[in-house]
Amino acid sequence: MPEPDALEPFRTLLGAGGVLTAPDMLARYTLDHRELMRGETPAVLRPRSVEEVQGLVRLARRHGYGLVPQGGNTGYVGGATPEPGRHQLVVSLERMTRIRAVDPLNFTLACDAGAILADAQAAAAAQDLLLPLSLGSEGSCRLGGNLGTNAGGLQVLRYGMTRDLVLGLEVVLADGSLFSDMRHLRKNNIGTDPKQVFIGAEGTLGIVTGVVLKLWPAQGFRATAWLQLAEGAPLPEIAALVRRETADLATTFELISASSLALVAEMRGAPIGLRTGPGGAVLLELQASSARIPLDDVLMGTLELLMEQGWVEDAILAQSEAQRREMWTIRETIPEGEKHAGGSFKHDIAVPVSRLTDFLEQGGRLLAERLPAVRLSFYGHVGDGNIHYNLVVPKGQDRLAFSRTVEAGIAHDLYAIALALGGSFSAEYGIGRFKRDLLARYTDPTRRALMATLKRGLDPDGVMNAGAMLGEE
Amino acid sequence: MPEPDALEPFRTLLGAGGVLTAPDMLARYTLDHRELMRGETPAVLRPRSVEEVQGLVRLARRHGYGLVPQGGNTGYVGGATPEPGRHQLVVSLERMTRIRAVDPLNFTLACDAGAILADAQAAAAAQDLLLPLSLGSEGSCRLGGNLGTNAGGLQVLRYGMTRDLVLGLEVVLADGSLFSDMRHLRKNNIGTDPKQVFIGAEGTLGIVTGVVLKLWPAQGFRATAWLQLAEGAPLPEIAALVRRETADLATTFELISASSLALVAEMRGAPIGLRTGPGGAVLLELQASSARIPLDDVLMGTLELLMEQGWVEDAILAQSEAQRREMWTIRETIPEGEKHAGGSFKHDIAVPVSRLTDFLEQGGRLLAERLPAVRLSFYGHVGDGNIHYNLVVPKGQDRLAFSRTVEAGIAHDLYAIALALGGSFSAEYGIGRFKRDLLARYTDPTRRALMATLKRGLDPDGVMNAGAMLGEE
Repeated sequence: MPEPDALEPFRTLLGAGGVLTAPDMLARYTLDHRELMRGETPAVLRPRSVEEVQGLVRLARRHGYGLVPQGGNTGYVGGATPEPGRHQLVVSLERMTRIRAVDPLNFTLACDAGAILADAQAAAAAQDLLLPLSLGSEGSCRLGGNLGTNAGGLQVLRYGMTRDLVLGLEVVLADGSLFSDMRHLRKNNIGTDPKQVFIGAEGTLGIVTGVVLKLWPAQGFRATAWLQLAEGAPLPEIAALVRRETADLATTFELISASSLALVAEMRGAPIGLRTGPGGAVLLELQASSARIPLDDVLMGTLELLMEQGWVEDAILAQSEAQRREMWTIRETIPEGEKHAGGSFKHDIAVPVSRLTDFLEQGGRLLAERLPAVRLSFYGHVGDGNIHYNLVVPKGQDRLAFSRTVEAGIAHDLYAIALALGGSFSAEYGIGRFKRDLLARYTDPTRRALMATLKRGLDPDGVMNAGAMLGEE
Repeated sequence: MPEPDALEPFRTLLGAGGVLTAPDMLARYTLDHRELMRGETPAVLRPRSVEEVQGLVRLARRHGYGLVPQGGNTGYVGGATPEPGRHQLVVSLERMTRIRAVDPLNFTLACDAGAILADAQAAAAAQDLLLPLSLGSEGSCRLGGNLGTNAGGLQVLRYGMTRDLVLGLEVVLADGSLFSDMRHLRKNNIGTDPKQVFIGAEGTLGIVTGVVLKLWPAQGFRATAWLQLAEGAPLPEIAALVRRETADLATTFELISASSLALVAEMRGAPIGLRTGPGGAVLLELQASSARIPLDDVLMGTLELLMEQGWVEDAILAQSEAQRREMWTIRETIPEGEKHAGGSFKHDIAVPVSRLTDFLEQGGRLLAERLPAVRLSFYGHVGDGNIHYNLVVPKGQDRLAFSRTVEAGIAHDLYAIALALGGSFSAEYGIGRFKRDLLARYTDPTRRALMATLKRGLDPDGVMNAGAMLGEE
C-alpha cells in the first residue's frame, strides 16, 4: 500500500497537467464505457513521451502502485478500469498522439499508441492511403487500445484483425525497460517474435507506446448493395459465393436482422426506406483502388447469381453517396437503437462461418423456449463468423439486474451452443474484468497455464493491469 | 548424458519403424539442406500421433536427451540439424501427414504438422480453394517447418507470411503436455494468444503437431507479364503504382537481375527468349477467383502507365500457359543456376520497399569496390522489400572457404547498409544455427532478453532444439 504523499514524484516527472487527482476529473477515466463498473484510482497519469512512461513505471514499482493502461476508454469489457482496493494508477496515453511517419511507397504508418484511430486513418488518407482498421468508436478509441484488444471491426473480412496489420511495436515493459521494434518491414524472420505477445494482452504484459501499421492504397471506388434475404437463405453459402465471385474485393458483409432494423426505426420514430427479407438483410460493399475494376458489374453479376439461387429476394444498389450513407447509418446505429429501447445484453459470439446457420437456428429455438418475451437483436460481421447476439432489456426492467440474470443463466446456454460448434464466447471484445469468469470456465487449463507463464515471465510482480484477463490465476 | 540402452523405451513407444539408428539411415536427417553442417544424433524418432509426440517428450526428459524437431529438412539456416555433443534426438514429423479437414464454406484447412506443403495445397485445390503459401521447396517442405520459420515465399505480397495464414495451432510443450487451439475461427479474442509465440520460434519452445490455416477461393484466372525495366527505373514507385492500379490483385512482383538471368542461361546452355532491360526485369502476375475481373485489361492498363512514366522499356504478356510457365521457370531456377555456377553465398535481406533503390545502389557500389571480380546474383520478392542478394562462388574457389570469407567480411558491410535503411539481415530464412552470431550482433539486448524470458518460461530445462536461435544466451 502506497504512502499518502507518494504521488509527488509523479508530479515531478510528469508536470502539472500530468497527474490528475480531483474526483470530478477522475470520473471519466474510472467509469467503463458501458457504465457497468465504477472503478477507483488515486490518480490518472498522462505521460507525454516514451521516457515518461518508462519513468512512471519505475516510480509505480518503487511506491507500490499498480498500473492500468488506458486509451480511449471505449472497451466493452472493463479492461481499462482500475479496480477498487488495488491501488492502481490509470496511465492514459491521451497526450501521446503523434503520427510519427507515413511512408506512401512502403505503405506503412507509424504513430504513438495514444493516437486516435480516426486521426491515423486521416493521416493515411491525406496521402491517398488506407488504414483499414475501422470501428464504431474510431472517433475516440486510441490505437493502443486497439492493439491491446486486437480489435476487429467492419473490414476484417478483407484486411484481418488488428494483429494482421501490425508490422512494428514499441512497449514499455514491467521493469521500465523499453522494447522497441518499430521497423517498417513486411519480412523480418529473426526468431521468436516477442511483439506478438503484447497484441491482445489487454495491457497485462506492458504498456504499448508506439506501433507501425500496414497501409493499403486508398479505396476510391466502391459498390454497395442492400440484400433482402429469402426465407432460409443459407448465410455460409452466400458468403462463400460472394468471396469467390467478387474476387475477395468485398470489404463488408454485414447481417442485419429484422429486429435490429426495427430498433433503428423506433429510435428514429419514422419508417425506414429499406427493409429486410424473411431471412434478414445483408449490407454488402466492394471496394477497389483502381477504376480499372468494374465494381458495379462485379456486384450486379454476383447479385444475379444469388437471386438465381433463390437466396436473395431483392437487392438495392446504392445509386448515390447519400443512399450508400443511409445503408451504413442503419448498420452503425443499431447499438444506439438498442440503447434507445432500454439497453441490451451483448453476446459477442463467433463460430466458423460454415456453422452460422446452425448457431442461429439453435440459438433462436433456445430463446423462443426460454425467453419468449425478450427481443433479440442480432447483426454483425457474418463474413468473419462473428455475430452480435444481443438481448434487449424488457421495458420496465432494470438494465443491470437484467444483465445479471442473463449472464448467470441463458448466456451460458448460448455459449455452450457456440462452443459445441467450434466457436468462441468472445469474438472481438476481449476478456477485461467482465469476462474473467468466462475465460476460466470456457478455455482449457493448458491455455490459461501458458497465459500465466507469459504473465509471470514478463510481469513477475503483477504491476501491469492486475485483475484483468486472468484475474488471480 | 543418456545411458547406452536409453533408446529402448522409445522403441517400445514408437514401434519398430519409429526409431532409426543405422548410420546410413540417419545421414539424410543430420545433413542440412545446404550441406554446410553435418550434425550428429543417436537416433531419429518418427512418431505417428500427437500422443506419441507427448510420450517421446516425456521419455527424452527422463533419459536426458534433447530434441530437434524436423519437417522436410529444407531450411537454409541449420535450424533442424542436431548438434554434435548435445545428445539431441531428431523428431521427424514425416509420418504425421494427415489432412484433417477442409471446410470450403469456412475457407479453412486443418492438418498434421508433417503434411507436405504441396499435399495441403492439393487438398485445398481439390475443393476449388487456394492455400496461398508457396515456396520453391513446396514438394518436400512440411507445414511444421513452415510454421517454425514463419515461411514467406512467392505470394507474400498479397497473402502475407505464414503467421498471417494461421488460425489454429496444436503444440506439444516441453513438459509433454498438449496445447491444443485448433479452432477454425477468424475471430477469437480471449486475451493473450499463446499460439503466436510458437510461430517462428524454430522449434525452440515446443513441437508443433497440427495447424489450421486460412484458405481463399481458387484463383482460376491469371494474367502474367515480363517487364524489362528502363535504366534507373525506381522499383518502389513501380511497386506502389502496381499495387494501386491492379487493386492489389498482384500476387507476384519478382525482380530478376541481368546477372541472375545469365546464370539460368548458362545452366541451360542456351540463350533465353526473354531478356532484362538496363534496370533488370520484373515478373508480375495478377490472379483472381472470378472471370468478372478483366485481368488482361487491368494488367495492360497498368503496363501502359509504367511505360508512359518511362520506367518500363518493354513488356511481354504471357499469351499461353507455356509462355507463362517459361517466365516462372526462369524465376524458379535461379537458385539452380547459382548452384551450377559453383554455388553462392546467400544474403537474405529485407528493407522497407521505399528504400530498395538505396540498398541496391549502396550495395552495388560496395561490391564494385571491394569484390569487383565476384558475380552478384540478386533477385526476389521486391514487393515485400525482400532481396536475395547472392555472391556467386568464383571459379576454382572452394565453396565453404568462400562462404566463410564473405560471412566474416563483406556480409557485415551489407547488413550494415540494410540496417541503416531500417532493414533486416534475415527476411525469410530465420536464425537456426548458422545465424546465431548475427542475431546476437544485430538485434538489441532487450529483444533477446524477451526471447530468453519466453524460452525459460516455456522450456526451462532446454529440451527443445537447444543451440538454435539464441544459442547459449
